[in-house]
Amino acid sequence: MTVESIDTLFVNFRIATLCDKATDYGRVEGMAIGVSDGKIAWIEPKESAVAASGTPKIVEGKNRWLTPGLIDCHTHLVYGGNRAKEWELRLSGVSYEEISRGGGGILSSVNSTRAASEEELLDSASSRLKFLQAEGVTTVEIKSGYGLDVETELKMLRAANRLRELNGIDVETTLLGAHAVPPEFRDRPDEYIDLVCKEMIPAAKDICTSVDVFCESIAFNVEQTRRVFESALDAGLQIKVHAEQLSDLGMAAEAARMGAISADHLEYLSPADAKVLAENNTVATLLPGAFYCLNETQKPPVAELLKQGANVAIATDSNPGSSPSLSLLMMGNMACNLFGMTPEQSLVGITRNAAKALNLNDRGTIEVGKLADFAVWEVESPSEILYQIGGNPCVGVYKRGKLVVAK
Amino acid sequence: MTVESIDTLFVNFRIATLCDKATDYGRVEGMAIGVSDGKIAWIEPKESAVAASGTPKIVEGKNRWLTPGLIDCHTHLVYGGNRAKEWELRLSGVSYEEISRGGGGILSSVNSTRAASEEELLDSASSRLKFLQAEGVTTVEIKSGYGLDVETELKMLRAANRLRELNGIDVETTLLGAHAVPPEFRDRPDEYIDLVCKEMIPAAKDICTSVDVFCESIAFNVEQTRRVFESALDAGLQIKVHAEQLSDLGMAAEAARMGAISADHLEYLSPADAKVLAENNTVATLLPGAFYCLNETQKPPVAELLKQGANVAIATDSNPGSSPSLSLLMMGNMACNLFGMTPEQSLVGITRNAAKALNLNDRGTIEVGKLADFAVWEVESPSEILYQIGGNPCVGVYKRGKLVVAK
Repeated sequence: MTVESIDTLFVNFRIATLCDKATDYGRVEGMAIGVSDGKIAWIEPKESAVAASGTPKIVEGKNRWLTPGLIDCHTHLVYGGNRAKEWELRLSGVSYEEISRGGGGILSSVNSTRAASEEELLDSASSRLKFLQAEGVTTVEIKSGYGLDVETELKMLRAANRLRELNGIDVETTLLGAHAVPPEFRDRPDEYIDLVCKEMIPAAKDICTSVDVFCESIAFNVEQTRRVFESALDAGLQIKVHAEQLSDLGMAAEAARMGAISADHLEYLSPADAKVLAENNTVATLLPGAFYCLNETQKPPVAELLKQGANVAIATDSNPGSSPSLSLLMMGNMACNLFGMTPEQSLVGITRNAAKALNLNDRGTIEVGKLADFAVWEVESPSEILYQIGGNPCVGVYKRGKLVVAK
Repeated sequence: MTVESIDTLFVNFRIATLCDKATDYGRVEGMAIGVSDGKIAWIEPKESAVAASGTPKIVEGKNRWLTPGLIDCHTHLVYGGNRAKEWELRLSGVSYEEISRGGGGILSSVNSTRAASEEELLDSASSRLKFLQAEGVTTVEIKSGYGLDVETELKMLRAANRLRELNGIDVETTLLGAHAVPPEFRDRPDEYIDLVCKEMIPAAKDICTSVDVFCESIAFNVEQTRRVFESALDAGLQIKVHAEQLSDLGMAAEAARMGAISADHLEYLSPADAKVLAENNTVATLLPGAFYCLNETQKPPVAELLKQGANVAIATDSNPGSSPSLSLLMMGNMACNLFGMTPEQSLVGITRNAAKALNLNDRGTIEVGKLADFAVWEVESPSEILYQIGGNPCVGVYKRGKLVVAK
């Protein structure tokens, strides 16, 4: 990397590198960041950087804080309709059962999503994605899972992939065909799993990078989940899992042993299985929005996960039912206030560890060689980024060195 | 009110009037709102309104929802510094005691606020207020209480009053001299109460409309609170109270009997005292942000308050310690998800009942004669306004009929 190749120089920022093993946010002051072709090429003392470089574009930091762009590593951002009415009914005292009988719950999202065109899915997801981006998100994972038939699952994945072009944001797509048993297969879940393995995965394998399964008493059991993962691995796809959200079925550890890149939710994870995640480098992704919306009281074993050395990520779980969340910052705040994480652990959870949860080794920290994806913050210290409820302190977002959100 | 006097006509909105006793958000469709001199002059069928009016300015609603402007009826928005560092220390395992010994807690805000100029207080509060306004807030209450000496309490009230001119927003100011015992009066709280009654209230009475006291074991007792209220009433000021937040001292009911316009927090309010609030038309203002940030488990008796017919309001309690919240919508969401209120009750709590908590009879609903303070929402139904976490659906704010926030 030569000095001549640097096209943009970021100067006078206070930098939270959030690098592995760095303490105190990996904070660095008095350094300039040289960007070449969308990547971090140089982190040098400001004076030498400015003197050595030719005529790059200068981005003046005015002493603001700069962090890696945020990464939302678990969302269901593409769907038709919304479930506000159902939320209202529940708060008015109508039971889950009655709502289900009335076509509510996940089935309502399945019907709306099947009825929507790819264009409509793209438009509504795009509106939602802009809110995430305005808070500094530069990479987002999006799952299918409201189609539950081959055609609609593919439509969702195509819409998710197209969001990448539209918004200057990176999208990682995950096939979640095994999200729920579709009405057509009621009482025949194993036959639906056959469909997922034999038709859906082969059809989707070139337009997604991972396969996810919701393993729970109300969804699929351990054996069914294992079958889906075997097909996914055979197709060359990565695996991740919704596990231990409502009960402990031991699936997070099982998935970790199979090579899962992340296990998500984990409220009921046992201490022994926390160790298995750490040993297998499977990221523990916590979803405080769902915990909050479902009025859960069982908290994920955060202290045990951290003690065992597991990488803990935080995500929005953005979805129309259990977590209608469009604020990754608020999720970071909840990880602190509800789960007792420190602001630094939580910030690492929406950057460095979120990148690991997606197996993306080219982002999530500020280091030479990584993508020049940055968020700029109007704060006095990095802890303030997650301290407030609302009042977005993000004042700039850069994707591969280019300004994509300005304030 | 003649048709000729109408200067602005709002057409093609779906309207949630939120009027007293209206059900289903008081929803009205096909009507136009005529505004004259900043007030609602006319609510008529769209066709007749358009035909009858002269050449008013037309605001086209495009079928969006319109509600009364939101009202945040309990904030501490004016202060110096912030307490993110202290929040971080607590989450890192440092005890409250250690933080207090290190000059943390409310004392830290008192020191920063005393050190700040009126201009600095104005600037920082103005930045915060813009976030509230962007979510549809058109009236905000702001308390003093981080000065704890005559000079600084007046400086805070002056800064709060000046926010009114700057932002096109209405500000109601409250003297909260009795927020905590200042260090100069340690172990002499009664002498400090003398100062509040004999010097602070007389000095502040022309630049605030209400007097508030924090009645709690860690602040002032019932007898001290009563003395402050007697002085406030003698000076012609309204009274309101921080009560029953951490324990039940019976002060909410006592204040209600003295004519308090609101009693705030109320986690430990007894059922009997809920009845006293209802009987005395004292608004019960709930502050879910503080409940959430303090990891409280004791919830205010919402069902009992509603059953007794009390008016329940919701506010941010925006402050640097126990509720660093700049989102009234998120507080409305918490009132639903944490306290079990319906979206309609919660929306009424940040409009109609919030107006009552400030004894402002000219706003909080959409009715002829009320101020033309409106928020416009990009939603399909009013319940969606509070359904999401983040992702502000407010796309326009009107103050006295004039556009103040556009998106």
